[in-house]
Formats: sequence, C-alpha cells, structure tokens
Amino acid sequence: MPRVWSVDLPNHIGQKVAIAGWLLRLRRLSQVSFVIVRDGRGMVQTVLDDPALIEQVAALPAESVLRLEGEVVNTPQAPRGVELRVERVEVVSEAAEPPPFELHRPEIAAQLPTFLDHAAVGLRHPRHRALFRLAAASVAGFRKTLAKEHFVEIFTPKLVATATEGGANVFAVDYFGRPAYLAQSPQLYKQTMVGVFERVFEVGPVFRAEPHDTPRHLNQYASLDVEMGFVEDHTTVMALLERTIAGMLSHITDTAMAELEILGCELPELPAHMPVIDFAVAQRLIQAATGEDVLGEPDLAPSHERWLGEWAVREHASDFVFVTGYPLAKRPFYTYPDPSRPGQSNSFDLIFRGLELVTGGQRLHRYADYLSALAERGQDPAPFASYLEAFKHGMPPHGGFAMGLERWVAHLVGAANVRETTLFPRDMQRLMP
Amino acid sequence: MPRVWSVDLPNHIGQKVAIAGWLLRLRRLSQVSFVIVRDGRGMVQTVLDDPALIEQVAALPAESVLRLEGEVVNTPQAPRGVELRVERVEVVSEAAEPPPFELHRPEIAAQLPTFLDHAAVGLRHPRHRALFRLAAASVAGFRKTLAKEHFVEIFTPKLVATATEGGANVFAVDYFGRPAYLAQSPQLYKQTMVGVFERVFEVGPVFRAEPHDTPRHLNQYASLDVEMGFVEDHTTVMALLERTIAGMLSHITDTAMAELEILGCELPELPAHMPVIDFAVAQRLIQAATGEDVLGEPDLAPSHERWLGEWAVREHASDFVFVTGYPLAKRPFYTYPDPSRPGQSNSFDLIFRGLELVTGGQRLHRYADYLSALAERGQDPAPFASYLEAFKHGMPPHGGFAMGLERWVAHLVGAANVRETTLFPRDMQRLMP
Repeated sequence: MPRVWSVDLPNHIGQKVAIAGWLLRLRRLSQVSFVIVRDGRGMVQTVLDDPALIEQVAALPAESVLRLEGEVVNTPQAPRGVELRVERVEVVSEAAEPPPFELHRPEIAAQLPTFLDHAAVGLRHPRHRALFRLAAASVAGFRKTLAKEHFVEIFTPKLVATATEGGANVFAVDYFGRPAYLAQSPQLYKQTMVGVFERVFEVGPVFRAEPHDTPRHLNQYASLDVEMGFVEDHTTVMALLERTIAGMLSHITDTAMAELEILGCELPELPAHMPVIDFAVAQRLIQAATGEDVLGEPDLAPSHERWLGEWAVREHASDFVFVTGYPLAKRPFYTYPDPSRPGQSNSFDLIFRGLELVTGGQRLHRYADYLSALAERGQDPAPFASYLEAFKHGMPPHGGFAMGLERWVAHLVGAANVRETTLFPRDMQRLMP
Repeated sequence: MPRVWSVDLPNHIGQKVAIAGWLLRLRRLSQVSFVIVRDGRGMVQTVLDDPALIEQVAALPAESVLRLEGEVVNTPQAPRGVELRVERVEVVSEAAEPPPFELHRPEIAAQLPTFLDHAAVGLRHPRHRALFRLAAASVAGFRKTLAKEHFVEIFTPKLVATATEGGANVFAVDYFGRPAYLAQSPQLYKQTMVGVFERVFEVGPVFRAEPHDTPRHLNQYASLDVEMGFVEDHTTVMALLERTIAGMLSHITDTAMAELEILGCELPELPAHMPVIDFAVAQRLIQAATGEDVLGEPDLAPSHERWLGEWAVREHASDFVFVTGYPLAKRPFYTYPDPSRPGQSNSFDLIFRGLELVTGGQRLHRYADYLSALAERGQDPAPFASYLEAFKHGMPPHGGFAMGLERWVAHLVGAANVRETTLFPRDMQRLMP
C-alpha cells in the first residue's frame, strides 16, 4: 500500500492508504485512542478503535516512528478536515525514552539554552520547522531572482591565507603546519569573479571570531553574497538589492504561506522604492529627536537603528530604510569614495525593522586606487597580491552586498535571538550539537 | 543608450546599441581595426574604421574594460552572425599591464600551477568560464530535482567539536581557546535533520586534511549531500541518486549546451537503470581479467575502478556503475549492515567513467545499534552524545549520499585534474589565491 503525505490526505478521502511518521501525541479515551502523527510535511489525526491496536500503541513513548494503514475519512472538526481510521499499525522504530520537550504544545516550554542543547528533538516542533522552511524558501527566492538576471553561482575557498576585512576576529587554522584563517567573507573572491562572469553570487558559511555574546551575533552564519559589474555607483547595487528582497518575499508567498501562518507573522509591505537617508542627515534627526550628541560618531548605535526603523514606518510606511554616505574611514579598504563629498563613501546599510540587515556598496576597481587605499590605511599590499591581480588586468566599476540569512529570518518573524533561526548555532559557549 | 549583452546582439540587427566588456583581442589592419570584446556572457567582434577610434584603442593592453556604441550589422562570417560597427569608444578601465596569458587562444598555454597562480585572469578564458557555468548548472539541477521531491535545503555548522568520520584528517581550529575541527562532512547533521524534515539536502564546503597530493584529492571541496527517511534499504537511495543525476544532466541540457560545445564534451548516456555489481563479484571479475590477487582486499583500487568503468560500458553501455555490498568494517560506524550477509553492508559507491563519484548507503537508525556499533569499533560514544540524541527519540530507516561537485564536473568534461574544475583550489601547497 503506497504511503501518502499527511498534507495530501484530503485528496484521498474514502481510500485506503498508509501514512508514516512520528507519534506526536496519544490521547486515550474509554473506547478509542487518537494518535496525532507528524510526518516530514505536516500532521494528521488518526483514530484507533480496535482494542488490539489501542493496546499496541498504549505504551509507546512520543516520537516513536509508526506506519499506519487505514481509510481516510472526511472529518470537518479535524485538522485539514480529514482523519485516518486505522486498521493496521506497524511500529517502525520505538523511541528509547520520552522526548525532553512536549512537542505537541503550541510552544516548547524551555529556555533557549535548553532548547539548543536538545535541538535534535526541539527542531521537530512545527514552529521550529517553519523557521527553517522559511530560510530555505528565502534562499530559493534569492537564487531565482539572481539567476533571472544572469548571475552565476560560485563556491569559493573558506580557508584563506589573508584576513579579508582586517586582521582581527579571524579563526586560525593549522594548515599542514602553516597558518591559515577561516574566511570572514567571500569578498575578495566575489570581486575577482566579476572579472570572469560580471555577476556572481554565493550562499555559504562565513566565520567571525568576534567575542560578542549578544542576541544578534554568531560565530558562523550563512551569508548571501552578491557582486555585480558595470554599475553606475552604489545606487545600482541598492536597486538590485530591492529586486532581490522583493524576489525573496515573492517566493515565500508562493511556497511558504503555511509556514507564515504557523509562525503568525506577516510579510513586510514593500514600498515602490525603499526610502533612503543620508548618514549625516540621519544623525541630525536622531540628535534632534533624542537629545543625544551623536554628530561626529562614525556609525549608528543599535538604538539609533531602531529609531530610524520607526522613522521609516512613520514617514514612509516602509519596514526598510537605506542609510547611505557612511564615513569612508569606517568602511573597508575596498570601498569606493563618494566622488563629490571627500571623506564619504559610496556605500550603504539596509535597515530592516530597526536592525542592520545588509551592508553593501561600490568597490574600488582601479589597481592604483587599491595601492593608495592600502597605503593610506598603513596596510601591507603584499598579502593581497593575488587578489590585486584581478584589478591589474581590467575591472569595471562594480559593487555588491551581503545579507545574513539567519538574521533575515529572525527579523522577518520577530525572533528575539538569531540563535532561534540558526540550525545548530555556534557562539562563544556553543560547539555542540 | 542601453547596454546589450553580446549574446543578445542578433536580436538588435540594424539598431544602435552599446556593449561593454573586456578587450580580448585587437587586430589592426591597414584601414580598419577589429576588437573582440568579451562580456559576462559571451563575445562579439567589433569593427572600427574611424582613424580617431583606431588610435584610441591602439595602445590598450588586452583585458582593458571598454564600452562601445555603434550599429549592429548582419555579418554571416562573424561569430553569431553579427558585428558592431563602432561609432564611439569609452575606455572604462585601462589594464595596468598585459595579462599573463593570451586569453584569445583556444587553450591557455601554461602549466596548471602557473594557471592557478594567476587564476584571477585565467578564469576569464572561455573554456574555464564554461567549466564553472557547468558546475553552477549542475547544482541548480541537483536542487531542482530534490525540491520537486520535497527535500528541504539546510545549512549546518562547519565548526564542530567531534570529528565525524574518525579522528584523522581533520583541520584543527582554535575556538576561543578550545579545540574545534572543520567539518569533514555534514553527515551527523543531515541524519539528525531526517527527524525534522525526513528529506534534506545541503550544498556546502567540506574539509579534509588528507596529506594526499593527487589529481583527484583536494582539502576543501563542495559537497552535494542528501539524506532521506523511510527508505526500504540502500536501494531506495540508489534510485534517488539515479533520479538526481538524471535531473542534473537534464538541467545542463536545458541551460548549458553552449558550455558543453565550448568544452567539446558530450553528456553521458543514461541507461534506463544504472548497472549494479556486488563488491565480491566485481573482485572476482577483476581477478579473472587482470590476474591480480584482489580477493580479500577491503576496497577497490583506482585501477580497479577504471576496469569496472570499462566493464560497465562494454557490458551495459553505461558510463555509470553501482558497486554494492562493501565490507562493513571499511565503512563508517553509522553504516547499516546487510541483514542477510554478515560482515557486509547496505552501502554503495557510484563509479562514473571509471572513478568513484558518490558514496552512500543506508544508516543505522536505532539508538541501541549506535551504541553497539561504536563499542565494536572501540569508539567512545560520549563525543557523539548530542548526535545520538536524535536516535534516542525515534528515527525511521534512512540513508543518503554525498557527491563532490568539482569531481563531478571533472569527470563530465574529462579534466585530468580536479584542480581545473575547482574555483581557487586548496591543496597541501596552495592557500592562494
């Protein structure tokens, strides 16, 4: 008898089918037992009234794996309007002990560290499954949008000889007796590949040895990286980012509405164009509103990002706001300066619901400009020699951006801690599971 | 004037357009200059007959970046049947010096190490671009096939506390003063996620500290990993692998025929079902054919894989052949034993054109079986505790496979060395570029 997915049962009413999955919950009444079974895609209520079958499942711990055969019946009060009248039960794999959480509750009743210790089981809860399906749908939408615009997917080295973004915050690796580092970003490689394909993207892990124990920092995350040649300036990249986010949201709408419903969250409204505010203008607004002396600060504090997020909703009905015109000194050496405003840069951050989500901008593209930029910062160009070779041999004006996948999902669903939207997170304390 | 991609020019005959790209080659005749321009997607021949324009480009090093405006004219003898009659040239970015290779030759005339040292430029050659477009198309086909079958994409930790496949051949990382390792595979995580989604896949880097300097080993590669619940045994996984490879080839056919043509290679013929041979039977055939004493060897040598590849073509008209029934002792601890043949395993390798491409099989799914398997091998179960938790709480029979992306492309195009199909490869000598 062929197995049917729980979500497809409404198409099989009146038929005999088999389902398979995990025993989520057993409710025993006087004459009948109800077993809720969870499979890879959903859940179904099953009904057992044969005393032998009731006996067969009576002592099974939750999360035991079952295969059940029976007839699909129309049951308006059951989830999805169907239930399975069970005629045969096979215990495929009995759980060795009850799970550490009650997975049938609307939420798992555990503190985050306890949940993470037992993620192998906790992730089976519908809310947690929904978070990671949302992540997968986001990435699929990201790729789909970029493929349409002729971006080529690349896979670059994660073991590198040179720290990309400066020497701090890198993990050191013993590479056959030589020092190596885990890549903090694919920055240098994706720029190099602009010389090859003009338009590239990568979805891959990046590693930051930042000793920060905050709800929004992790030591490994999935970075959605994009780089594009022949840009006018950073605004070409901003327009691409807007289309990419629209594509991600549209793919979620097409494929993950059930997940949004489980999570009880709504997708952000996208304005026709995301509002843009200059860094210095934002500082003046923040100073006027809060009384804090922020002028001259080289960056926005988290509280100021939150203020700007509220401002964008209030003034522009937008969950997103671009900040441009950051001081050049605070951006990495490859950042393109603003040709009209000395000391400022053709770069941007995108703030989503009050938190920085994306960083991007135009990059230097002339070899001589790289040598000057490194010299001005007192950095030795030698470790960058094989990176700089791309620029020696003709590179167009180009730019790109990077978005953290886990942070994106966290902002989307309003998760308080990015660890909730990270599969087996890595932080200063946590290397397991 | 809007920019048009080189490959789209045949749709613009008679129109004035702009193109942009790299100066691949300049040929100067007495009255006219021809400039071949390469953009992110292809190449186009342009014609300059205005002496001022001829002078403007005369001294430019190859790989300088240009923007050219002019009229698209029908020119049957030119590539793609069109050329651009140039009316205006903008030098977007002049190359600082000539490239280390002549990129307009049919092949780059350099030894592999020299090519790899200058990959930033060498990858711009059409043959090398084609290899990495083929890789991207393969991955896209892999994902598309699995998404149709409800597999969920996951992103797992690459920094781990336990060496997955035994203690040797791992890179050590200083993780905030604690020892950690780079993941050799997502094996333990993808199995854990079978408990969550039943069907998962991951495309990500894996790290092997193997001190092997061969044409087919690298220390980082992109692994295409799949894991599936509710399998009958390893043959369910083999059938999935056949569908996956068919999907990859079909996506290449749909999207990358031009690349196959550039590379002069043909896709393998897929038989209705790939032939399957038992390990012991294969050994007897090899011994009979070669006279070598291979019976009792625990694995196939590369020369024996080549012999089997030829056998599969000869006997089954297939570029692929499955080998099953490997001795359990040579497979990892999570391998499911063959219930009918003690000492043998429900595992397989897939040999493609005489080289091992994929390893897979059924895994243990009962908690008690894991404890026994680790004890039999004298391995301490403690480091695996949070992995084993998944099995304590109900896991169905499951299995999966892993395929190296770079090796796949190398076999597909007949590349002699997997470094040719790896973007910035990492080996014992090479950490740059």
